[in-house]
Amino acid sequence: MNLIDQYKTVRAHSLKICEGLKTEDYVVQPMEDVSPPKWHLGHTTWFFETFILMANVSDYQVFSTDYNFVFNSYYEAAGARVIRTDRGNLSRPSLDQVYEYRKYVDEAMAIFLAGKIPSAVNDLIVLGLNHEQQHQELLITDIKFILGHNPLFPTLNLALDEGELLNSGEFVSFPEGIYEIGHTGEGFCFDNELLRHKVYLNDFKIQKHLVSQGEYLEFMNEGGYEKFEFWHAEGWDWVKRNQAKGPLYWHQVDGEWMQYTFAGLQKVKMDQAVSHVNFYEASAFAAWKGMRLPTEAEWEIASDQLDWGLRWEWTNSAYLPYPGFCKAPGAIGEYNGKFMVNQMVLRGGSVATPKGHSRKTYRNFFHAKHQWQFMGIRLAE
Amino acid sequence: MNLIDQYKTVRAHSLKICEGLKTEDYVVQPMEDVSPPKWHLGHTTWFFETFILMANVSDYQVFSTDYNFVFNSYYEAAGARVIRTDRGNLSRPSLDQVYEYRKYVDEAMAIFLAGKIPSAVNDLIVLGLNHEQQHQELLITDIKFILGHNPLFPTLNLALDEGELLNSGEFVSFPEGIYEIGHTGEGFCFDNELLRHKVYLNDFKIQKHLVSQGEYLEFMNEGGYEKFEFWHAEGWDWVKRNQAKGPLYWHQVDGEWMQYTFAGLQKVKMDQAVSHVNFYEASAFAAWKGMRLPTEAEWEIASDQLDWGLRWEWTNSAYLPYPGFCKAPGAIGEYNGKFMVNQMVLRGGSVATPKGHSRKTYRNFFHAKHQWQFMGIRLAE
Amino acid sequence: MNLIDQYKTVRAHSLKICEGLKTEDYVVQPMEDVSPPKWHLGHTTWFFETFILMANVSDYQVFSTDYNFVFNSYYEAAGARVIRTDRGNLSRPSLDQVYEYRKYVDEAMAIFLAGKIPSAVNDLIVLGLNHEQQHQELLITDIKFILGHNPLFPTLNLALDEGELLNSGEFVSFPEGIYEIGHTGEGFCFDNELLRHKVYLNDFKIQKHLVSQGEYLEFMNEGGYEKFEFWHAEGWDWVKRNQAKGPLYWHQVDGEWMQYTFAGLQKVKMDQAVSHVNFYEASAFAAWKGMRLPTEAEWEIASDQLDWGLRWEWTNSAYLPYPGFCKAPGAIGEYNGKFMVNQMVLRGGSVATPKGHSRKTYRNFFHAKHQWQFMGIRLAE
Amino acid sequence: MNLIDQYKTVRAHSLKICEGLKTEDYVVQPMEDVSPPKWHLGHTTWFFETFILMANVSDYQVFSTDYNFVFNSYYEAAGARVIRTDRGNLSRPSLDQVYEYRKYVDEAMAIFLAGKIPSAVNDLIVLGLNHEQQHQELLITDIKFILGHNPLFPTLNLALDEGELLNSGEFVSFPEGIYEIGHTGEGFCFDNELLRHKVYLNDFKIQKHLVSQGEYLEFMNEGGYEKFEFWHAEGWDWVKRNQAKGPLYWHQVDGEWMQYTFAGLQKVKMDQAVSHVNFYEASAFAAWKGMRLPTEAEWEIASDQLDWGLRWEWTNSAYLPYPGFCKAPGAIGEYNGKFMVNQMVLRGGSVATPKGHSRKTYRNFFHAKHQWQFMGIRLAE
Repeated sequence: MNLIDQYKTVRAHSLKICEGLKTEDYVVQPMEDVSPPKWHLGHTTWFFETFILMANVSDYQVFSTDYNFVFNSYYEAAGARVIRTDRGNLSRPSLDQVYEYRKYVDEAMAIFLAGKIPSAVNDLIVLGLNHEQQHQELLITDIKFILGHNPLFPTLNLALDEGELLNSGEFVSFPEGIYEIGHTGEGFCFDNELLRHKVYLNDFKIQKHLVSQGEYLEFMNEGGYEKFEFWHAEGWDWVKRNQAKGPLYWHQVDGEWMQYTFAGLQKVKMDQAVSHVNFYEASAFAAWKGMRLPTEAEWEIASDQLDWGLRWEWTNSAYLPYPGFCKAPGAIGEYNGKFMVNQMVLRGGSVATPKGHSRKTYRNFFHAKHQWQFMGIRLAE
Repeated sequence: MNLIDQYKTVRAHSLKICEGLKTEDYVVQPMEDVSPPKWHLGHTTWFFETFILMANVSDYQVFSTDYNFVFNSYYEAAGARVIRTDRGNLSRPSLDQVYEYRKYVDEAMAIFLAGKIPSAVNDLIVLGLNHEQQHQELLITDIKFILGHNPLFPTLNLALDEGELLNSGEFVSFPEGIYEIGHTGEGFCFDNELLRHKVYLNDFKIQKHLVSQGEYLEFMNEGGYEKFEFWHAEGWDWVKRNQAKGPLYWHQVDGEWMQYTFAGLQKVKMDQAVSHVNFYEASAFAAWKGMRLPTEAEWEIASDQLDWGLRWEWTNSAYLPYPGFCKAPGAIGEYNGKFMVNQMVLRGGSVATPKGHSRKTYRNFFHAKHQWQFMGIRLAE
Repeated sequence: MNLIDQYKTVRAHSLKICEGLKTEDYVVQPMEDVSPPKWHLGHTTWFFETFILMANVSDYQVFSTDYNFVFNSYYEAAGARVIRTDRGNLSRPSLDQVYEYRKYVDEAMAIFLAGKIPSAVNDLIVLGLNHEQQHQELLITDIKFILGHNPLFPTLNLALDEGELLNSGEFVSFPEGIYEIGHTGEGFCFDNELLRHKVYLNDFKIQKHLVSQGEYLEFMNEGGYEKFEFWHAEGWDWVKRNQAKGPLYWHQVDGEWMQYTFAGLQKVKMDQAVSHVNFYEASAFAAWKGMRLPTEAEWEIASDQLDWGLRWEWTNSAYLPYPGFCKAPGAIGEYNGKFMVNQMVLRGGSVATPKGHSRKTYRNFFHAKHQWQFMGIRLAE
Repeated sequence: MNLIDQYKTVRAHSLKICEGLKTEDYVVQPMEDVSPPKWHLGHTTWFFETFILMANVSDYQVFSTDYNFVFNSYYEAAGARVIRTDRGNLSRPSLDQVYEYRKYVDEAMAIFLAGKIPSAVNDLIVLGLNHEQQHQELLITDIKFILGHNPLFPTLNLALDEGELLNSGEFVSFPEGIYEIGHTGEGFCFDNELLRHKVYLNDFKIQKHLVSQGEYLEFMNEGGYEKFEFWHAEGWDWVKRNQAKGPLYWHQVDGEWMQYTFAGLQKVKMDQAVSHVNFYEASAFAAWKGMRLPTEAEWEIASDQLDWGLRWEWTNSAYLPYPGFCKAPGAIGEYNGKFMVNQMVLRGGSVATPKGHSRKTYRNFFHAKHQWQFMGIRLAE
């Protein structure tokens, strides 16, 4: 697909995700890490306006000078910004204005893309499209959080393909030795995947399939949330402070475990991959099983033999730079490198990840406490 | 006006206030004490559904069983409720549904009001209408807070009649002696105004007119916010913690003081009554002037000779029961009595108060720290 | 007693209170409103050094220039100060140094008092002695808090005379009319008691005796802490947030109510006056009884016919200025006036109040939430 | 040295460190991560009482049953414990009692050590001694924090040997290849160092010497704390929230940088190794230099050619398990494994580390935000 078609396809998909929403759903922010859908739509647009149009189109008229303040996320180099906890207080710009903003920028981008694009700008546009795809996944997880925390548990016409979980408990084995990880080749990747390099791994085994909700319920039923010995100290504090009893979106109703999905409150399906568990829960489950989580290197080496794509899989690797990593200069350099502390790496991809966005070298990362992404568990030993 | 016309008039006025809003404006809650406009519209409706229709219409079908949870405010006797800080996270029920809810309840009320109404129920309906009028004022102040804290400073077509402030500094004097305060007579009043009783007052003088923005600016310019000696200890803490420099909605732009109004960011008008000051600021201003705030008894005695109706005027009286006050039994008893600690009395009425709602015995009350109502200052000595 | 003897007597009594403490007990601050005993000893000394010696003795050498910073409490006019929550982090000045400081200042005061004292300075010294007596009561309540929150429940050789509680339920009645309250006459009083003035009271009855622990336990046993209808809204929040079940220092051990006293953990004595209840609890108890708390005016009028001196008695009066009240100029003006918001008046005196310190016009005041003083309940109707 | 002599030597050193303290200094806790010296003395003793004497001496009489509650730190398996933020509120047990407790346990240990010790118990005693040595370092850093945050800046007779910093900027180089890290051999080590294993490293260079205070001041003078581009996102938040301007204990007095040491407030010595910087600061400094922090594997491989022992050196490695790591069963298993999330590894040892306690495989770890240990910087590239 040429760049102009890619641009149109990706941009259209963001609107597709939001199709079933009511205007009110676009506005709220029930926790700090969730952003209002309206904001995601504006922020991804701001990326193209700021880094492509303003930087390359000499007579470009900014849609609104206030929008840099409202829609910048964390790019310090790009100026002041609304603090994250305030996004849910902004009724304006209205949804109509945000849609108008998208249209305005898309039209300017169409004109720009019809011309000759220098290679560096081309790369930046591809980055912008991958950035928008990341926000498409966040749109889905944030919408789920917004509706799933509403006491009316609204449904939404947004199907996520859970496929089929083959849960045989089968392992794949790898011998000790030198392996290579990291991205290589032609296609797009983020800077944090680059610099393919050697790692030395001990013998390891890794499960072909993800942990199911049925297995996780067994852990819960055997007192997993009451036994400190399975948990990190921080994880145990999290359990007690939040009186955690199970994954996010699980509710015990009349003695039965239900979970919120876009189809409303449903019985927990035992043969689905468990989702919405944080790193503490994933680690505690593994400890209870007498196993452990894989490292990201193990995961990448084994990936061709694994089923994957249903859940972002917690690894036991902290998010750190690959050997030789350097931040790019300027605002784009803030994309990844500055988050390389106190985050854990997740590998794979999920039912909410746009088709073709992830790959086996992809390094997703979140703080250990988060549950609201489609995060699951794969075991190793 | 008969009850059915009163009902229609009052209910229609709530919608009138919201006419210029966008759907998004109905949803957000930028501070705990502010409620989303959508919530005010639902809550006032819930009052009639719960206390009139459910209690008196045997075959009444509740619009939605979830709404008691969502729209109850603080009536413990009426069941569980959404905590106040969560109201701004609720995108559903949607605005459409809330309007439908109003329509549904209004139709049921119309049928009910066409029949014979027992006197006690009649009183409760009148209470419900006065309750809705209180929320009409809150609608205006909360909308102002929502728009006034948006970085785009949106305008709204909602005119408030500031009238003319006569600011001659003239005083009215009263001799020492026994006076009577409290409500008497036929019309509606709240339970906290009842029990007309004698009070003994010393000689006092009270200003006929409110303090102007120009006078208040003089206080600011003479270092009012830097001199602890004018402030209560709690007030001084408030100043320092919030780095307060002036009333709410005042912004210094290029050396000039501007204020947010529904017409957008405007130059401060010197001959308008100062507004959006809290009790700490009102007291500090009075101390700087070498005067004091009136007590609520003084205010009520003098009221016939005062201009009033532009601002809720801070008094130096704490909100406490009148001699002989008893809470009514049941949920309605929670209306006033349970707030009688740590609040100050405000008297008068404001540009945002519905016509005919206030009266000279009316006891409004807020915590000393609040600024977001149309609160002003009158001096006594 | 002449001033020099008064000075010696009062100053010696502070040390007497601390006699049984260990050095470690002087240092800690388990909640913000409690101060370390060491700090009380230093602060009361700092008062005499700053307001008497530095102001009146031309060649006076300050003991340590750092002490103004450490031992100033809230006198903004007297310079910067250690914030209250930090007092418990200061291991230095050591206890020895504080005792040395007391000795140094006492010696300078002895010399000064041997000379001719101008009347205004004489008044300030008397104020300083009354100030120290207030801190003597705080010393006792703060020591009780420190030891009573230690898991070892240490005993202390500090007897408080509980006397005998006559608990007949007998009332004293007063007819409607004009009464006078406020201090008059020769002796010392605080500025907040001055300006004797007329008040108009309705008929009222007030109990001769305080509420006993037995009566209060009955309230607890009948679900007093589970029924919102007896409580102020704020009080009910306090109950739920703190999971309050009874007065401070009460612990249920093996089904029996025990209370911490300086004699250790003891069975609750049913015929003692209830203590360590806050305003919310006192009000809820009164509501449960179908009565109310007296106003401070009622209390003062009735005081000659009441038993009192065992507990500081919560009134239903907010702490506000008497008609005509003006703050004194300078630091001493900060003594009382600046606290006149969001506090309730307590009348009487307690087992921890130094002999001769209180009187019937005395206005003690605390925030409604506090329990750690010897606070009790008297009913009116 | 035999075990009994080792025991006596280590135990005596804890008391030696505290020699110059006043009783008051033993009690306070000015931040959550600091513990009162009294608590360290009790806690290290509780370790021997609980895990050695109670477990192995059949007729052992516990010194006080309350002490398990007071002196347990984080061993969930060993029962309830005082939460960390409350340790500074405990005036009892008094220092005398803690010393008595040490004496009592030491006497029981002397008797026990005179007998035949099973090998597993022997190992546990050695662990206990290493545990006490870790607390000896904490004693020094916590005492420094307590005195260094006192407005009087007290001095203490506790010399730390800063040695000589050779600061030539010289690098040591290592070629790409397979290396081995982890403990091997006979001597004591912690479980987190075990399981010597292969790692694959790229070419790297590492500085022989630590970064000096002079170099760090250059970073500060060139706006290091004002330029977000050198910082992790979390680090930049930390800078802004704390208005950080330099290392802990540095104060700008009359334009000159001073630092608190046990000798009081002193001019910053330019040729000393910089200390009391957190991971954010160390990383920002490295980014400013265009270099990076070493990984823990690089550090360990290079260690024989580095000067070290003055500072705990931040690495860019997260604290994670070595391949094959398993937690030991029971309370001792809580020693290390449960902290393996959200902490960074520090290598080396410091002026406060007891002689002989550290080694080149030693893995110290702290959260990225902490400054209060003697933490320094070594650069790599």
